Amino acid sequence: MNNFVDVNDADNIEALIEHALLLKKSPYDFENLGKRKTIGLIFMNPSLRTRLSTQKAAINLGMNVMMMNFSGEGWALETEQGVIMNGDKPEHIKEAAAVVGSYCDIVAIRTFAGLKDKDDDYNELILRQFIRYCGKPIINMESATVHPLQSLTDLITIKENKEAKNPKILLTWAPHPKVLPQAVANSFAQWTLAAGYDLTIACPKGYELSTDFAKGAKVVHKPEEGYMDADFVYAKNWSSFVHYGKKLSEDKSWMVDAEKMKLTNNAKFMHCLPVRRNVVVEDSVIDSVNSLVIQQASNRVWAAQAVLSKLLENL
Amino acid sequence: MNNFVDVNDADNIEALIEHALLLKKSPYDFENLGKRKTIGLIFMNPSLRTRLSTQKAAINLGMNVMMMNFSGEGWALETEQGVIMNGDKPEHIKEAAAVVGSYCDIVAIRTFAGLKDKDDDYNELILRQFIRYCGKPIINMESATVHPLQSLTDLITIKENKEAKNPKILLTWAPHPKVLPQAVANSFAQWTLAAGYDLTIACPKGYELSTDFAKGAKVVHKPEEGYMDADFVYAKNWSSFVHYGKKLSEDKSWMVDAEKMKLTNNAKFMHCLPVRRNVVVEDSVIDSVNSLVIQQASNRVWAAQAVLSKLLENL
Amino acid sequence: MNNFVDVNDADNIEALIEHALLLKKSPYDFENLGKRKTIGLIFMNPSLRTRLSTQKAAINLGMNVMMMNFSGEGWALETEQGVIMNGDKPEHIKEAAAVVGSYCDIVAIRTFAGLKDKDDDYNELILRQFIRYCGKPIINMESATVHPLQSLTDLITIKENKEAKNPKILLTWAPHPKVLPQAVANSFAQWTLAAGYDLTIACPKGYELSTDFAKGAKVVHKPEEGYMDADFVYAKNWSSFVHYGKKLSEDKSWMVDAEKMKLTNNAKFMHCLPVRRNVVVEDSVIDSVNSLVIQQASNRVWAAQAVLSKLLENL
Repeated sequence: MNNFVDVNDADNIEALIEHALLLKKSPYDFENLGKRKTIGLIFMNPSLRTRLSTQKAAINLGMNVMMMNFSGEGWALETEQGVIMNGDKPEHIKEAAAVVGSYCDIVAIRTFAGLKDKDDDYNELILRQFIRYCGKPIINMESATVHPLQSLTDLITIKENKEAKNPKILLTWAPHPKVLPQAVANSFAQWTLAAGYDLTIACPKGYELSTDFAKGAKVVHKPEEGYMDADFVYAKNWSSFVHYGKKLSEDKSWMVDAEKMKLTNNAKFMHCLPVRRNVVVEDSVIDSVNSLVIQQASNRVWAAQAVLSKLLENL
Repeated sequence: MNNFVDVNDADNIEALIEHALLLKKSPYDFENLGKRKTIGLIFMNPSLRTRLSTQKAAINLGMNVMMMNFSGEGWALETEQGVIMNGDKPEHIKEAAAVVGSYCDIVAIRTFAGLKDKDDDYNELILRQFIRYCGKPIINMESATVHPLQSLTDLITIKENKEAKNPKILLTWAPHPKVLPQAVANSFAQWTLAAGYDLTIACPKGYELSTDFAKGAKVVHKPEEGYMDADFVYAKNWSSFVHYGKKLSEDKSWMVDAEKMKLTNNAKFMHCLPVRRNVVVEDSVIDSVNSLVIQQASNRVWAAQAVLSKLLENL
Repeated sequence: MNNFVDVNDADNIEALIEHALLLKKSPYDFENLGKRKTIGLIFMNPSLRTRLSTQKAAINLGMNVMMMNFSGEGWALETEQGVIMNGDKPEHIKEAAAVVGSYCDIVAIRTFAGLKDKDDDYNELILRQFIRYCGKPIINMESATVHPLQSLTDLITIKENKEAKNPKILLTWAPHPKVLPQAVANSFAQWTLAAGYDLTIACPKGYELSTDFAKGAKVVHKPEEGYMDADFVYAKNWSSFVHYGKKLSEDKSWMVDAEKMKLTNNAKFMHCLPVRRNVVVEDSVIDSVNSLVIQQASNRVWAAQAVLSKLLENL
């Protein structure tokens, strides 16, 4: 593995999951692999789970960790080419990426969608430039369109909890007060489909995901429709891809509640967190024994550690 | 020791002080105790001494340190139960605490009083929830009502400087431009009384501390009254407990000055810092040879290291 | 070396450069030198290169690193003596410096010019107080008037790239949308002159640097004038020293462009970064094979590591 930017960087998803589960059992088996190696964690957006779990994974492998918040500790980066930089952005991503790369052996970066220009976001304008100019292996800690560390974690958690060989998975849109990117949903669709799972996506009309990520999933447009016989219910809000970045619905009947969960095959509940309680999911569901949200979050360490160990082996 | 949340977690205050003083002499005697152990330092409020001294203490014990600022790097946490989370708080403390706990072996948290709802603050609403959901040993790095790491430091410093077996200690209220919590004052009263010292608290009427913390202290209401024969003068501002969170006085005669210090038994001056010079205390007092403020601050490392080593022994 | 505050702390510039180049070849030759030693990195202003490169240098020497942002994580510091602190600054630099010093073996600090009071800035009011009260060796990570780690890096980079024994160096002022300190320019002049190089400074009238730093340099006032036969062109904006902190020119003809670079002896282009593209320097120049900006930035690690190793040897 030379980068971990999207699902295509995982040659063998199943083997990566197995490696993560091995690390979960024996976190220090490779604690010298990262000796004298430094990872830079670059945040252009806030982070809790990703920040701490990636740091922990690096520590478990014996790496040095350097953190940089580009808001607060640093400054906004210019990403356009050829621009006259006389505005509020004091540094171009060309320099910033190359400089960070020169100090690190591996660089992990978080850079969310702007949700203003679909082409910029779906061409991964910032991430692609960072990769191009950084010169070091890159880990995507959530970009404009995908969140592969989260999706790998999700597959690890499904593997730990599935009873059927090929469980029925529902990815359901849910309401949210804010306008959010499609990254987690895109990525979850892409990875579960790549893993060969049976995926249904339920969302209001106009919220269909890009077929680049969701091709092969069944799509339904009524809140209750996908729950029947589901083994896993994965809730997430996202803004419209078609009407890019727009909020088309606040329909509360899309909230995951105990009533709809009764339609399932005693399904497990999943969410990447942070989650808006009683907006995205009812307390009674997220607080039930079937809720996997904390297990998912704690598995972030093993997903990151599996990815990091593969990158370190290739340095 | 399973948590270090308040004075009740210290089975034996004297032994803890002795252990801290031992570590001060030999900082690296237990430098492998924290190997492969990670402490998370969680800040919901700004910090200088607590941040650096706790980090240093953990390093001295061989621990890994992960820091998280919940403002800036993260986000505001919801602390109410059953609420519909459609406002400006994207995550509930239930999830945040459990997730942080899953990444760490010990979690230290700073969460100040809101000073709006006395019951919320004095029930330690946030800290108690964090303990409940985190699932790991918790260190209180100043909560709504107490600051036990500071008080342990204060007792260490008194031990190093006292001449009499049972010195006379004055805790005096002092003016301040801002409205501050009672935590440091509560905690200082509680720990000095638990240690069996002779404590007088001087404050304007209406600034009496809760008897939960200050029972057993003599209380006086004139600025000069408590200074007579004092061996230690500990200055601190706090807002009213009775008229909760209110500022009742800006009376400058409560500032600690050279004049009043002359009434003492050549008393040492103490303050937890940061301190407003020439508001809380006159330059001539804090800059005198009797000032212990830097020694107090530097002892924060040994207090934290003593507590951490006790928690690590019990993991 | 007991401090690294300005050029006078470098007993032997040539030897320091050689030591840095040795460390560049063998970064881990002294990886136990910093064992059980802690450096505090104190930022009163934002930083990217300085933050990461100094951290990396300390890690390479086996040191522990503690970071503190005094805006955000901490608070603003009072720097006036004898003031009544009832405003928005909750702590005096006297206490803050002493406390940080008590937790660290070496302290590195960044504190920019205020550009309001020339005397305060040129007396290094904040840095000098920090040194005075901190009690530990200090590294200047850019102060009001100088940026010695940058200048040492610049000399390392010139050493790596010069062909003539005594190359001709041009330091040229360039336009900028903001009002910037003179620190990088002062320091570059001071160090190149101390190293015995032939330095020309080109700037609009009114932008002459203080002779304390630039004495011995040739000064010219037309954009093209200094380029003739130059081996190195170092671009930088600064505000006026004479009309202190003022912006006197936005003349775009001072931008470094391909046309003016043609006048040189195939000169290398240098800048400390961050740089405003197409304001300070044209894309075609900074993107050319003659641009050294990334090499400069990456050499920051070796400059810092050379300085740190000298300070550690003296502890």
